[in-house]
Amino acid sequence: MPASALPPPAVQLIDVAPRDGLQNEKVDVDTATKLALIQALLGTGLRRIEVASFVNPKRVPQMADAEAICAALPAVADARYAGLVLNAAGYERAKATGRLQDLNMVVCATDSFGQRNQGQTIAQGIEVVSAMARQARRDGLSAAVTVSVAFGCPFEGEVTVARVAEIAEALAAAEPDEIILADTIGVAVPTQVRATIAAVRERVGDAIPLRGHFHNTRNTAVANVLAAYEAGVRRFDASVGGIGGCPFAPAATGNVATEDLLYLFQRMGVDCGVDLAKLNEVARWMGEKLGRQLPGMVSRAGVFPPRFGDA
Amino acid sequence: MPASALPPPAVQLIDVAPRDGLQNEKVDVDTATKLALIQALLGTGLRRIEVASFVNPKRVPQMADAEAICAALPAVADARYAGLVLNAAGYERAKATGRLQDLNMVVCATDSFGQRNQGQTIAQGIEVVSAMARQARRDGLSAAVTVSVAFGCPFEGEVTVARVAEIAEALAAAEPDEIILADTIGVAVPTQVRATIAAVRERVGDAIPLRGHFHNTRNTAVANVLAAYEAGVRRFDASVGGIGGCPFAPAATGNVATEDLLYLFQRMGVDCGVDLAKLNEVARWMGEKLGRQLPGMVSRAGVFPPRFGDA
Repeated sequence: MPASALPPPAVQLIDVAPRDGLQNEKVDVDTATKLALIQALLGTGLRRIEVASFVNPKRVPQMADAEAICAALPAVADARYAGLVLNAAGYERAKATGRLQDLNMVVCATDSFGQRNQGQTIAQGIEVVSAMARQARRDGLSAAVTVSVAFGCPFEGEVTVARVAEIAEALAAAEPDEIILADTIGVAVPTQVRATIAAVRERVGDAIPLRGHFHNTRNTAVANVLAAYEAGVRRFDASVGGIGGCPFAPAATGNVATEDLLYLFQRMGVDCGVDLAKLNEVARWMGEKLGRQLPGMVSRAGVFPPRFGDA
Repeated sequence: MPASALPPPAVQLIDVAPRDGLQNEKVDVDTATKLALIQALLGTGLRRIEVASFVNPKRVPQMADAEAICAALPAVADARYAGLVLNAAGYERAKATGRLQDLNMVVCATDSFGQRNQGQTIAQGIEVVSAMARQARRDGLSAAVTVSVAFGCPFEGEVTVARVAEIAEALAAAEPDEIILADTIGVAVPTQVRATIAAVRERVGDAIPLRGHFHNTRNTAVANVLAAYEAGVRRFDASVGGIGGCPFAPAATGNVATEDLLYLFQRMGVDCGVDLAKLNEVARWMGEKLGRQLPGMVSRAGVFPPRFGDA
């Protein structure tokens, strides 16, 4: 890239390790360590972090400390903390903390996945999420609605692009602040990502930003993120170290590692506002805490210093 | 993709596990196991395999059985077996086996890497490789010339696109059958891959096929392969299971796994002529032989049955 060229558009990385990541790890992590992780992520420059889940603590005991986490969140002016809410009870708990800017909500793109995971069909999911998104607007909170298993379902197999676009369109009526397309089981390929984004854009328009959530289960996450970026998506979920496995394939990887996305973007000259060396340190520290080699690769391989095109 | 659309162009995968892969593993693998690996790879449908290295057995003892391997190679009519040759002595040994169709040769894209690895500068490397490629033509053998560290050097850092294009142009004068662009330390990003291919094409033209050799050390290999494919490259090196580490980062991954590339291409409807379920079995078997979890992901996660667009 010649020095005179405009830099490519910046990207916002959202780290989901404290919630989505740790919820899928076998080792329990205590509240103090979660808070240390959140603090460490802030220290790298990351400003959007998913910190807690307001689900039934009997079903997901790892997340029972949601209120304790929120009460102790570092006061950083430009930080945006997110919590997962799946129903009205969770919504009220999250709102009551007074510490969250973003609420994440989920509609599953297949009835089978929705019924097993949330006890609701697609139609019921759209109804529940739309009501919460509207409430968030009234409450001055930001609503991010996820379409999960948007690229394939462990029970039903292929999910059509048309169905994802229909779900997105139905959700858009509630005017959420973001629509997240999630490859929950890590099966997407870039041609599919492009087709899905195009179909969603056709139905939804450009007013609501799209956000990508890709799992690296089959080694396609970085390629999928790049395909989404080149199709106009500027916000991506990731998990430091690649924390979080895949419940449907015990030996497999889940969330793509934040440091791996950062390496990709940074070396392509895309600003993410995050320090890669510091992020690698956080990944290595979490690997020690969890007692396993995390799937994130850049923290093991090390940074390659220059940005392509600077030499 | 509508059923009426033409299928995307096919891809040829070259498995380098028996040579490039095993040479970089800590566990020694005996000749019989290497031959079983080669046989198993043929059983998946793969037809191009790098089987041996004709380098100094004192320097690379794992490859001392090159002649024994070649003598016992399965007689498969359409199989193409490759051997690595770095100088005239190696060339003569490889030729003398009478069992190889392809000879792989290497020029390093930096003087530092070339001097440490092969005791020669870039200019000396071009001279040696050009002479061997011309000799191969006279001997009726196919010559594949690799530009190694083409996307970054562990000693010199950034390698410019212009330099890679110059080296490729110099090599093209010897009319090799393929030019391989190798990301030997796994630092490339897709924008760099596109720029490099465009620059090489500008200097070399379209007559000599390009081939990609990408390491997944920093999780960018699949994205880089896709970028190269979409820029017209149709041949890719890979290693079943992702066998072979990275000598410059002991905890890191080297070659991208063949099954991971196959999954990507297959789900995008790109024909590779290889059976993914069988290839996953080979990867798992080699993981047991090497006593470690190999970095290939699809063999751990499992196949996602349908091809995108078929549903």
